[in-house]
Amino acid sequence: MADKKYIYKFSEGSGKMRELLGGKGANLAEMTNLGMPVPQGFTITTEACTKYWEDGETIAPEVEAGIYKYVEDLELITGKKFGDIQNPLLVSVRSGARASMPGMMDTILNLGINEEVAESLANQSGNPRWAWDSCRRFIQMFSDVAMGVGKESFERRIEEMKKSRGITQDTDLTWQDLKELAGQFREEYRTARGEEFPTDAKVQLMGAIKAVFGSWNNPRAIIYRRENDIPGSWGTAVNVQSMVFGNTGNDSGTGVAFTRNPATGEKKLYGEFLMNAQGEDVVAGIRTPQTIDQLAEVMPDAYNQFVEISSKLEEHYRDMQDMEFTIEKGKLYMLQTRNGKRTPFAAIKVAVDLVAEGMCTKEEALLKIEPRALDALLHPVFETSALKAANPVAKGVNASPGAACGAVYFSAEEAVEAAKKKPVLLVRKMTSPEDLAGMYAAQGILTAVGGATSHAAVVARGAGICCVAGCKELHINEEEKYLTIAGQTVNEGEYMSIDGTTGSVYVGKIKTVDAAVSGNFGTIMQWSDECRKLKVRTNADTPRDAQIALNFGAEGIGLTRTEHMFFDEERIPAIREMIVAKTSEQRKAALDKLLPFQRDDFIGIFRVMKDKPVTIRLLDPPLHEFLPHTDDDIKVLSGEMGMTFEELRSAVDSLHEENPMMGHRGCRLPVTYPEIAEMQTRAIIEAALTVKKELGINIVPEIMIPLVCEIKELKYVKDIITDVAGRIISESGSELQYRVGTMIEIPRAALLADEIATEAEFFSFGTNDLTQMTFGFSRDDAGKFLNDYYAKKIFESDPFARLDQNGVGKLIKMAAQLGKQTRPDIKLGICGEHGGDPSSIEFCHNTGLTYVSCSPFRVPIARLAAAQAAIRSSVAD
Amino acid sequence: MADKKYIYKFSEGSGKMRELLGGKGANLAEMTNLGMPVPQGFTITTEACTKYWEDGETIAPEVEAGIYKYVEDLELITGKKFGDIQNPLLVSVRSGARASMPGMMDTILNLGINEEVAESLANQSGNPRWAWDSCRRFIQMFSDVAMGVGKESFERRIEEMKKSRGITQDTDLTWQDLKELAGQFREEYRTARGEEFPTDAKVQLMGAIKAVFGSWNNPRAIIYRRENDIPGSWGTAVNVQSMVFGNTGNDSGTGVAFTRNPATGEKKLYGEFLMNAQGEDVVAGIRTPQTIDQLAEVMPDAYNQFVEISSKLEEHYRDMQDMEFTIEKGKLYMLQTRNGKRTPFAAIKVAVDLVAEGMCTKEEALLKIEPRALDALLHPVFETSALKAANPVAKGVNASPGAACGAVYFSAEEAVEAAKKKPVLLVRKMTSPEDLAGMYAAQGILTAVGGATSHAAVVARGAGICCVAGCKELHINEEEKYLTIAGQTVNEGEYMSIDGTTGSVYVGKIKTVDAAVSGNFGTIMQWSDECRKLKVRTNADTPRDAQIALNFGAEGIGLTRTEHMFFDEERIPAIREMIVAKTSEQRKAALDKLLPFQRDDFIGIFRVMKDKPVTIRLLDPPLHEFLPHTDDDIKVLSGEMGMTFEELRSAVDSLHEENPMMGHRGCRLPVTYPEIAEMQTRAIIEAALTVKKELGINIVPEIMIPLVCEIKELKYVKDIITDVAGRIISESGSELQYRVGTMIEIPRAALLADEIATEAEFFSFGTNDLTQMTFGFSRDDAGKFLNDYYAKKIFESDPFARLDQNGVGKLIKMAAQLGKQTRPDIKLGICGEHGGDPSSIEFCHNTGLTYVSCSPFRVPIARLAAAQAAIRSSVAD
Repeated sequence: MADKKYIYKFSEGSGKMRELLGGKGANLAEMTNLGMPVPQGFTITTEACTKYWEDGETIAPEVEAGIYKYVEDLELITGKKFGDIQNPLLVSVRSGARASMPGMMDTILNLGINEEVAESLANQSGNPRWAWDSCRRFIQMFSDVAMGVGKESFERRIEEMKKSRGITQDTDLTWQDLKELAGQFREEYRTARGEEFPTDAKVQLMGAIKAVFGSWNNPRAIIYRRENDIPGSWGTAVNVQSMVFGNTGNDSGTGVAFTRNPATGEKKLYGEFLMNAQGEDVVAGIRTPQTIDQLAEVMPDAYNQFVEISSKLEEHYRDMQDMEFTIEKGKLYMLQTRNGKRTPFAAIKVAVDLVAEGMCTKEEALLKIEPRALDALLHPVFETSALKAANPVAKGVNASPGAACGAVYFSAEEAVEAAKKKPVLLVRKMTSPEDLAGMYAAQGILTAVGGATSHAAVVARGAGICCVAGCKELHINEEEKYLTIAGQTVNEGEYMSIDGTTGSVYVGKIKTVDAAVSGNFGTIMQWSDECRKLKVRTNADTPRDAQIALNFGAEGIGLTRTEHMFFDEERIPAIREMIVAKTSEQRKAALDKLLPFQRDDFIGIFRVMKDKPVTIRLLDPPLHEFLPHTDDDIKVLSGEMGMTFEELRSAVDSLHEENPMMGHRGCRLPVTYPEIAEMQTRAIIEAALTVKKELGINIVPEIMIPLVCEIKELKYVKDIITDVAGRIISESGSELQYRVGTMIEIPRAALLADEIATEAEFFSFGTNDLTQMTFGFSRDDAGKFLNDYYAKKIFESDPFARLDQNGVGKLIKMAAQLGKQTRPDIKLGICGEHGGDPSSIEFCHNTGLTYVSCSPFRVPIARLAAAQAAIRSSVAD
Repeated sequence: MADKKYIYKFSEGSGKMRELLGGKGANLAEMTNLGMPVPQGFTITTEACTKYWEDGETIAPEVEAGIYKYVEDLELITGKKFGDIQNPLLVSVRSGARASMPGMMDTILNLGINEEVAESLANQSGNPRWAWDSCRRFIQMFSDVAMGVGKESFERRIEEMKKSRGITQDTDLTWQDLKELAGQFREEYRTARGEEFPTDAKVQLMGAIKAVFGSWNNPRAIIYRRENDIPGSWGTAVNVQSMVFGNTGNDSGTGVAFTRNPATGEKKLYGEFLMNAQGEDVVAGIRTPQTIDQLAEVMPDAYNQFVEISSKLEEHYRDMQDMEFTIEKGKLYMLQTRNGKRTPFAAIKVAVDLVAEGMCTKEEALLKIEPRALDALLHPVFETSALKAANPVAKGVNASPGAACGAVYFSAEEAVEAAKKKPVLLVRKMTSPEDLAGMYAAQGILTAVGGATSHAAVVARGAGICCVAGCKELHINEEEKYLTIAGQTVNEGEYMSIDGTTGSVYVGKIKTVDAAVSGNFGTIMQWSDECRKLKVRTNADTPRDAQIALNFGAEGIGLTRTEHMFFDEERIPAIREMIVAKTSEQRKAALDKLLPFQRDDFIGIFRVMKDKPVTIRLLDPPLHEFLPHTDDDIKVLSGEMGMTFEELRSAVDSLHEENPMMGHRGCRLPVTYPEIAEMQTRAIIEAALTVKKELGINIVPEIMIPLVCEIKELKYVKDIITDVAGRIISESGSELQYRVGTMIEIPRAALLADEIATEAEFFSFGTNDLTQMTFGFSRDDAGKFLNDYYAKKIFESDPFARLDQNGVGKLIKMAAQLGKQTRPDIKLGICGEHGGDPSSIEFCHNTGLTYVSCSPFRVPIARLAAAQAAIRSSVAD
C-alpha cells in the first residue's frame, strides 16, 4: 500500500482541495499560488483527523513523523529553527474544516515559545514587551483553547495586575508585568492539570494538533453540524503556519475586512484593524478598533496593497471575501480569505450585483444564497430604531419567525373579537385545535408551555404567524385576565411585542415593518424559476394560506388537509355526532350537516387557486382526536350531545388505541365508514363544479387517499369516489375532470408501487409517516431518545427534519421507479415537511419527482432550492 | 382474441385440470377417462366464476350460450331432452372449487323437473312415488340452497303432513302426500319471493349456476378461505351432470365410502348407504344407513364392482379416497371421488402405510399430511369413555389446545403452592404478567374475559398449556374463593376440567391421557428431517420450554426473550429501581441485583440446550411496561419503593408514550442506558462459561440486538457487548466464542441490510414487528378494523398469522440478498410467530433462510412444513 499523503505544504495545495485541506488550508494554498504575501506553512489533512478518531484518539506515528518533517521544511524556508532559543521558529495552529464551524478549537498563536525563548527574543529584538506579550499570550491560549484550563483565572490575574499597577489598559502593562503574568499563568496551569506547562516545542505542537482534532467532536460542534447538515465523517484539517507579529510596535497591527458590506451588500471595503495587536484582540473588543478606511491614513502602502489584494481575491473567487491580515513592521501578510458570511438581505443584493458586474452567471449567483436564509425576508421585523430603545423582559423558544406587536388577549374568542379593531397577541398557557380561529386572527402567539414542535409552534409556522413558545417567565391568570412576566403585570388589552426569530418578549409597543420583497428578491425568484425543473406547490388548508402561498409563487396545492376544517366550533358537534353514530343512517345524517361547510371550504380554496392544481386529502386522523378524553370534558360534552356520561365514555374508550399512529386512520376510516368518503367527494366535486361555472375556468381537482398499504384497499376507496363523483357530474349536466391518487407513506405501498399505480393517477410521498414507519420511530416520542443518538454520534440529523436519503430515500426511489414502470406519466410529489427542506428538495429533484409541496412561507425557499438542485445536477452531468 | 373455453365435457377434462375444473370436475373427468361408470355431464370452469364476478355478478351471454350447447350435447349422449315433458333430461348442479370448501352452495338434484314433468314421469315409470319425491326434493333444494327460501317452513310442512297422516317416517308418505307437499312448497316460495317458482328448465339451470357462483363470496366461504389460506381469486367451478336415481325403489340406493378408515387409518373400506334414497338422505340422518359391508349382502354385484373401483381409484390417486355412489335399478354409478379428509392420527398412519405398501414415496407421503393437524397429536386429551359420561356446563374460546383437569385456584400464588401436591387449574378473570408463575404451574388456565389473543391465550399457547379463555358464564369471587358457572358453585380446591381444543368447560374430574407420540409419528418426523433443508429452532424463555422443544426435535433456540424473566416477583423490584434511577451509579446498583437472576436463567437454558445454538435477545419492551399505571397501584408501589407518590407518578408519566410500539424500546434502551446491555452481556457470558466448564462442552451463545434501524446504532450496542464479553472472557482465563447479530424487524434495517451485515453475524427476521411497520398496522389495534378488510375482500388473511409474502416478503428477500452480499455465510432465521406457520415456512425455505424458530409446540409442525417446502421446491426445479 502506497503511503497516504497526510500533510501538504501551502505551495503544494490549491483552492480546489477543500475536502482534503479544509477551507482555510485550501485558501492559504490558493493565495500562495496567486503570489500573495502569505506566511508559509503546511496543512494536516482532514483524513488525518478521521484517522485520529479511527485510531482511538491518537496521532499515528507516521503522521507525527510527517509533521516533524514538514516543520523542518518550514525551518528551511524561514531560516529559523523550531524549539531553538536563539533563532526560534514560532507558529500558529488553527483548525480548518471544509465548512467554517463555530464550536471548534480556533487558534493558538506563538507556539514554540517558552520563557527562555522569550528572554532571548527580548534581548535580540530590543523589544521585550513584544517578547513577553507573545509568551503570556501563548500560555494563555494553549491552556484555555487546547487544554481547557484557566480561562477565568487568567483574566482575573490580569485584572489584579492592572489594579495593583493602577492602570486600566492591557497595553499599559510593562514587559515586567507581562513576564510576571506568564509565570503566574504557568503556576495556574500546574495547579489545574497537575503537571508542568509544556516548554518543549514539539510537545506543544502535538498537544495543539490533538486539541484541534479533538474539538471536531465536542458537543457544540456536533450540534452545529446537525443543524447545518454537515457530516461528522468530514473531519477537520489543521494549519500550521509560521508566525508574523502584529504586536511588535506601532508599525505593526492586525485586522479583518470584507470586500462588501456583509449587512447590506453594498460594494465597499468593510472592516477594522488594531495597531500593535495580535489577532484575538480585534475580536475581544478590549480596545476599540479603527475602521479599515483609516488604515489608508495610518499606513498608506500597506492599505493600498490590501485594497489591491482584496479586489483580486474577489475576482478570483467571484464572491464577496472575508479576509484576515497582519502587518509586521510595515509589511502586509494575508492570513486568511474565505467567502464572507452575509445577512439574507445582503446575500440577494450581492448575488444580483455580481451578475450585473459580470463576475458570475445567474446560476453561480443562485448557488451563493442559502435557501433557508430567505425565511428572514418573508416576515415582519421590528423597526431598527424602535428596537434599540426596547429591552426584552424574557425569552422563550423562537418557534415561528417574525416580529409582532399587539394587545394581549387570553382566549381565542376574545382575540377574534378584539382583532376586528386592533392588532392582537394571543397569549395562552398552550394552544389546542379549538384555538385555531384566535391564532389565525392574531399578529403573534405567545405561550408559557411547549417548544418548537408544540401545537402553537406548528400552526404558527404553517400560517406564517410569529410565535414565541414556552416562555417560562410568563404566568397567566386567565380568569382575572392579566399576566405577569419578570415582575411586571400586563392586563388584557395592554400591548406587548414578541420576536419569533429570536424568542425575545417585550412589554409595550415596538413598531414593526413588513418585510419588503425588494427588487433583488424578485430577481432571484425569477432566476430560480428559470433554472428549476421541480414544480413548487404548497400545503394549505384555507383560502388565506392558499393566497399567501400564491403570493409567494406557489404553482398549486399539494396537500389540503381536510381534518383541520372539522375543529371549528360550528362543525365539531356534527363530526362528534358522526363518530358516535350507531348506524349508517345516523352517520349519514351527521355528515349531511358537515357537507355544506366542507363544500364552502373547497369553494373558497378553488376560487383562490383558480385553474392551478389542488390536491385534497380525505380525512386522515383517528376519530378519537375529535373527542375529549378527561372525565370532566366528557361529562360536559355528553350533556351537550344528549348522551349519558357512560355512553360517551364508552364511545371514547372504544376508540382508544395503543398506537394510534398505526391505527384506525387514513383510508382505513372510509373502509369502515364509506359515508365519510362519500360526503367528502361530494363536497369536492360540487365545489369544483360551482367555481368552474362561476369563473368560467377549468378546474381538475385531485382527490388523495391517505395511508394506503394495499392496491385493493385503494381500489375500494377509489370506487366510492368515482361512484359518487360520476353521479354528481352526470346529474349536474356539466363536465368535470378529476384525478384520484394516493399518499405513499406506508412502506408496503412504496414496495408495491407498481401495483398501486394501476389505480393511482398520482403519488404524493408523505415523508412524515414514511419516516416514522421506515425507522419505527414515533415522531411524538422519538424526541426523548434522539438526543442520545446525537450525543453518541449514531445520528447526525433529525430524520424528520432532513430526509433520510439512505433508507427512506431508497424506498422513495424504488416507488418512483415502480410507479413510472406502470404509469409512465404518473405525477410524483412530496408533501411531508421535508418538502420545504433544501437538501430533501435536492433529493426530490434527483429522484425525478414532479413537484414538492411545502408550507406557504417555505415556497420561496423551495423555489431557490429546486433551482440550486437543477443547477448542481446539470453541472454534475 | 380467440374465444376462451369456459366449459368442458367430462370426457374433455382430466385429473390434472383441478385449477380450471375444480376438484370435483377434474375427478369426474378422470373417472370418465378411467372408464368408470360416471353419469355424463360437463363442468363450467373456475374462470367463468371469476368472470361472473368481474362482470358485476352476471353470466356473460357467451357463457350462457355455451352452457345451452353443452346441454344439447348431453341430450345426445343420454337420448333425453332438457325441459321436455315426455322424455325429460334431469340434471344435478354442484359446486366444485380447487379445494373442498364448506360454506359454499353444495348440491341441487333433479333440476329440470316441474309438476307436469313429474306427472309424466309418474305415468311412464309406473313409480309415482319416485316422480313426486324427486319433484318435491327439487323444489325444496332449489328454494333453500339456491334462493335462500323456506328451509324451516318446508320442514314444518313435512312435519305437519306426517302428523296429519299419523306417521313418523318420511318414507311412509304416499305419492299423493308428496305431490301435495310440492304444491305447498311452491306456495311458500311465491309468498317469500313474490314471484312464481320457476318451471322452465333453463331458468332453473341459470338460477342454480348463479347461486353456485354467488356462494363463492358468501361470508362463511370468505371466513373459511381466510382460515385455510385459499385465495379469493381461485373461484369455483360448476358441475352439471345427468341424474341417476337412488330413489326409484328397493333396487336403488345411494352411499358414501372411504377406502380406509378416516378416524384410525385402518385399511378397510369404511362407509354407509341407504336404499331407495337420494344423496342428502345419507347425510341428513333421518333414516339410519347401513354399513358398506352390508351392501355385499343386499346387492352383491354392485358391491363387488364398487370394491373393485375403490381399490382402482386408491391406486390411481395413490391416496385414501372418499367416494359417493348411486345405484339405480341395480346399476352402480360413481358420482364423486376425492382424497379423503382424515383425523391427524389417521393421516400419519395412512402416510406410513402407503409407503409400506409401495403406493407412494416418502416425499409424496409427507405431502399428504396437513402440518397444522399435527398439533392435535401433541397435547393431552380426555379419555374417550370418561368424556362420554361428562357434559360441558359452558363454552369459552378454545385458546390453547389440549385437555386438562385440576383443582381450581384463583390466584397465581395459591396455584403455585397447591401444584406442589396436585394438578391445578388456574381460574382468573384475566391474567397478567404477574401471574406467569401460576400459569406455568397449572395444568390448564380458565379465564372469564379475553379471546384468542389475550395474555392468557398467548402465554398458554407458547408454553403448550391448555387454555379456555373468555368464558362468559364464569363468575369468580376471588375474595371468598369460589366461582359460579351455569348455576353451579365450585369452591377453591374442587375439581374442574377444560378442553382447550373445543373450548368446553366441565365441572368435576375427567380423566386425561397424555398424547402418545406413536411409532408412525416418529417415522413421519424422521422422514421430514431427511427431506428438509431448513433448520428448526424454538422460541423459549425458560429451561422448561427449552426441554419441551428439545423433546419435539428443536435444533436450537432462535429466540430467548429476556424481559419475561423480569416480571418474576423477586426481580421486578430491582428492575423498577433500575427504571427510576437518576444516575448511572444507581442504575448499575439496581442491575447488579438482577445479574445473579439473569445468569441463573441462562445457566438453566444452556444446561438444557448443551451445545445447540441459543440466541438470546437483549431487553426489548419499553420500560413503562414494568411500572403500574393507575394512581392506586402507583400509591402502593411508591410506598414499597420509599418514594413519594408524586415522584413515582412523575417517573411513570415521563415514560408515557403516544405510540409505545415505535418508542423507546429495543436497542434504543441500551443506547440511552448502556448499563442494561452490560449487565445482560455479563449474565450471558458468565453463564456460558459456567456451563461450558461444568459439562465440558462447546457453547457458542448468540447475542441478538433488537429493533435496529441503523448500522451505527448496531455498532454502538455491539461495542458495549464485545467490550464486556472480551473483558470477562479474558479474566476467566478460558476461551469462549460468541456471536453478535440483530433482529431485522424495522423496514430500514431490511433496506440497508448490506450495511447492517458488516456488523451483524446473523439476522433474525422479527416478522411481527416487521409486519407492523411495513403495513403501518398496530397489532394491538388492527383487530378492530381488519374485520372490515375481510368483509370487503381487501384482505384474505391476517398478515400477523400468515406472512405477507408480497410486501413484507419483498423486504425479507431484499434483506436476505443484501445480507449475503456482504457476508456470504450469514445465518438467516425467522423468529416471529410466522416461524410456525406452514405457508410462511415455505416462503422461508424458498428465500434461502437458514432456520425458522417457533414456539415449542409448533416444532413438529415446522419440521414437517419445512420438509414439504423442500419437496415442493425440488419438484418445481
